[in-house]
Amino acid sequence: MKARVHVMLKDGVLDPQGEAVRHALGSLGFEGVEGVRQGKVIELDLAEDDAGKAEAQVREMCEKLLANTVIESYRVEVL
Amino acid sequence: MKARVHVMLKDGVLDPQGEAVRHALGSLGFEGVEGVRQGKVIELDLAEDDAGKAEAQVREMCEKLLANTVIESYRVEVL
Repeated sequence: MKARVHVMLKDGVLDPQGEAVRHALGSLGFEGVEGVRQGKVIELDLAEDDAGKAEAQVREMCEKLLANTVIESYRVEVL
Repeated sequence: MKARVHVMLKDGVLDPQGEAVRHALGSLGFEGVEGVRQGKVIELDLAEDDAGKAEAQVREMCEKLLANTVIESYRVEVL
């Protein structure tokens, strides 16, 4: 079973990487870029074939490793 | 207008970051993790309000900056 995790910085947390990308896009001549937020997408191949168990397992992975839950939020998709 | 870009390593390209995550998950006791691929998700706030123009603009951003098209593929969503 495949699962996909989206990890983004929580609203209100400064995103220096996003700001750097925004400035770089501006210097490349792209106008009208008002905001950029950058996060991670993690695709997992799991031996588990029960969707419910897989989702619970991935949520636990997020809590323990994949996301820094103090400043990041995550979203799990089981595919 | 909001747009989201998913940037992933192309199939066949070694993903050392994904491998590191896989090993870390294993050492945390998560079994059955057969593969991990990690990529970027970039959310853009654009002044452009025409969906077609916005998508074309974001594709150009990907080609010029957001993705290394030699080893990465990207997917654009206009939201």
